Amino acid sequence: MSEYIEHDKNGISVGLVEKKFFTFAEPPDELILEGGARLGPVTIAYETYGTLNADKSNVVLILHALSGDSHVAGYYSKDDRKPGWWDIMVGPGKGIDTNKYFVVCPNILGSCLGSTGPSSINPETNKPYALDFPMVTIGDMVTAQKALMDYLGIRKLLSIIGGSIGGMQVLEWCVRYPEMVVSAIPLATTTKHSALAIAFNEVARQAIMADPNWNNGDYYFGRKPNLGLAVARMIGHITYLSDESMRLKFGRHLQDKSDFSFNFDADFQVENYLRYQGTKFVERFDANSFLYISKGADYFDLESQHGSGSAVKAFSKARAKFLVVSFTSDWLYPTYQSKAMIQATKKNGLDVSFCEIEAEWGHDAFLLPNERLTLLVRGFLERVFEETRTEQHAF
Amino acid sequence: MSEYIEHDKNGISVGLVEKKFFTFAEPPDELILEGGARLGPVTIAYETYGTLNADKSNVVLILHALSGDSHVAGYYSKDDRKPGWWDIMVGPGKGIDTNKYFVVCPNILGSCLGSTGPSSINPETNKPYALDFPMVTIGDMVTAQKALMDYLGIRKLLSIIGGSIGGMQVLEWCVRYPEMVVSAIPLATTTKHSALAIAFNEVARQAIMADPNWNNGDYYFGRKPNLGLAVARMIGHITYLSDESMRLKFGRHLQDKSDFSFNFDADFQVENYLRYQGTKFVERFDANSFLYISKGADYFDLESQHGSGSAVKAFSKARAKFLVVSFTSDWLYPTYQSKAMIQATKKNGLDVSFCEIEAEWGHDAFLLPNERLTLLVRGFLERVFEETRTEQHAF
Repeated sequence: MSEYIEHDKNGISVGLVEKKFFTFAEPPDELILEGGARLGPVTIAYETYGTLNADKSNVVLILHALSGDSHVAGYYSKDDRKPGWWDIMVGPGKGIDTNKYFVVCPNILGSCLGSTGPSSINPETNKPYALDFPMVTIGDMVTAQKALMDYLGIRKLLSIIGGSIGGMQVLEWCVRYPEMVVSAIPLATTTKHSALAIAFNEVARQAIMADPNWNNGDYYFGRKPNLGLAVARMIGHITYLSDESMRLKFGRHLQDKSDFSFNFDADFQVENYLRYQGTKFVERFDANSFLYISKGADYFDLESQHGSGSAVKAFSKARAKFLVVSFTSDWLYPTYQSKAMIQATKKNGLDVSFCEIEAEWGHDAFLLPNERLTLLVRGFLERVFEETRTEQHAF
Repeated sequence: MSEYIEHDKNGISVGLVEKKFFTFAEPPDELILEGGARLGPVTIAYETYGTLNADKSNVVLILHALSGDSHVAGYYSKDDRKPGWWDIMVGPGKGIDTNKYFVVCPNILGSCLGSTGPSSINPETNKPYALDFPMVTIGDMVTAQKALMDYLGIRKLLSIIGGSIGGMQVLEWCVRYPEMVVSAIPLATTTKHSALAIAFNEVARQAIMADPNWNNGDYYFGRKPNLGLAVARMIGHITYLSDESMRLKFGRHLQDKSDFSFNFDADFQVENYLRYQGTKFVERFDANSFLYISKGADYFDLESQHGSGSAVKAFSKARAKFLVVSFTSDWLYPTYQSKAMIQATKKNGLDVSFCEIEAEWGHDAFLLPNERLTLLVRGFLERVFEETRTEQHAF
């Protein structure tokens, strides 16, 4: 990271940052995936901000959601207009204070934003994997992240933070590598995808696969399934908002017109918003990555995979201190799912804090500026950081 | 209607019924639509059950939702295995008792199930209208229903009943022809589509229009946009259910397998259900009709169209006695929307009953067997029928 510090609307930025790459699992030592397939070599893109302290006790691992990437904060160049996706939370003096903590964010396995995924070149064919890419689970994403931590020489994580699918990875880390995780902040997430969440993902996948340009996943040298992917993204965007937030943001306001068109133009602002989000998304995201990551999320079931169907049993492996946060208007991962998580962690005698934040913005709330969330995260990190120093923490 | 009476699992059926057709608005006397276009001739398919009494005071008009049709109850033949869509509610001795009431149900304008719609032949070209079909609003559907009532010599409606988009037509009737409507039962509906409801409809439309077979609406002589329409229907089905109903109905149960496929097959029962619903729907419904009716529903705004933005003002035109019913788990038209309707009708001194029914099945609840709903409807109809006789009703 450069020393270049920039002031912007989010306050002080971490400044110029750089995307880095770590490659491992070279054949014949491929990564063995939960589905049984072998994958290698595997590249994980990642970024780091702040400075690793001498005893390597200040590491905060941030794990992103479906379409996120390693670029959490800062800028890639002085001309770069858009900071990383959580710049409001991560930076000097911010909720996750880069003056104190060494922040790492890897791009997830299966993505198309630097890490190995279905759009990567299959070394056996010298063409993109497409559907020859093996299914990757949340557990496989975590396995790759662990390899990155090993490479960076990090053996203890002061905290792991992530929302949505990122939150699933946080939970997986806690039960998979309990000895490494001092604390965890799962945001707006769940221990297992509900039928409703699976349903939305499935319809989004069907929209992609219905696009003839999808061509059974083999489209990297031709026209892309942009229309299908745009519809998939629109479905996602509805689930990220809420009835209330859409009423407040759009209501029944018309888009640049005073009366109905009486045709199939985008009359309403909400229609225009969705079309715009769909169109914008296809410029930066790969349809096959959407399929793989969404299916991986649907498979996620911490209780069944780590507790024979019992959340209490699954969390019996965890040792971390938890800060669980849900949002009132999140109907994709509603508060009752976080409460079930709380119950299971408490039954294991774990140190757990829970906060349901009053927020109208639905599932998206965890990504939006929220003073309450910032204070919670900052306070929790300060506490656990302090405790690792004073308590001669067991890990 | 035949005298043939059949017993089935729903109790006594109205027996054999027949779809009838009424054609009007022959050029040059076309129907003038709310969007300004002229449409004619217009055919409305309809069915009737029971017997019209001497003073024509026992008419119950049933108005159906997006993909419904005129076939509310009974069977088309002795071999017919499937009764009409609301056979549980409509029949001898049922909630809407065909021994007492003369029931009429028209197929809505814009549909593809007997009434004129985009798949009908345009007399000017002798080809299906496709996108030359003019936009039809909820108000236009009601105008066509009024023409049918005139044709049948019906000047008073003991009750109008409908759920969802059918409920919008009920409300439109109440403010458009207040002198005709003695009572009204809007179920699981709203005075105006919310941004959330518009958003779901818009994504469904985008899924259809993204299908290259849609071909800008011109597909009647070639391959149909079945994949796009199936995705649209899947989106609809999610909105008709609820988080709770999906959890109870599907949970995370796998479909005919004991482990994940680790590919894009339908692993979960909920995936299989949605795919099945999508595939089944394309056999019976026209994609363009879906576009037109959903857009018509999005345009619906009783407050703005009849009350300059005020629900109280809109309902000031109504004279009917109301029974408003919402369902706890309906998140497409949540109870708060019915409550707003109640408030506006009460402020106008109207006779209004309201019931929120505890039901886990989401928006679909109004179509499912529900003893509470049956009793409510039966009691309300009996009361208003009695009152028209004893009070020398003003209408």
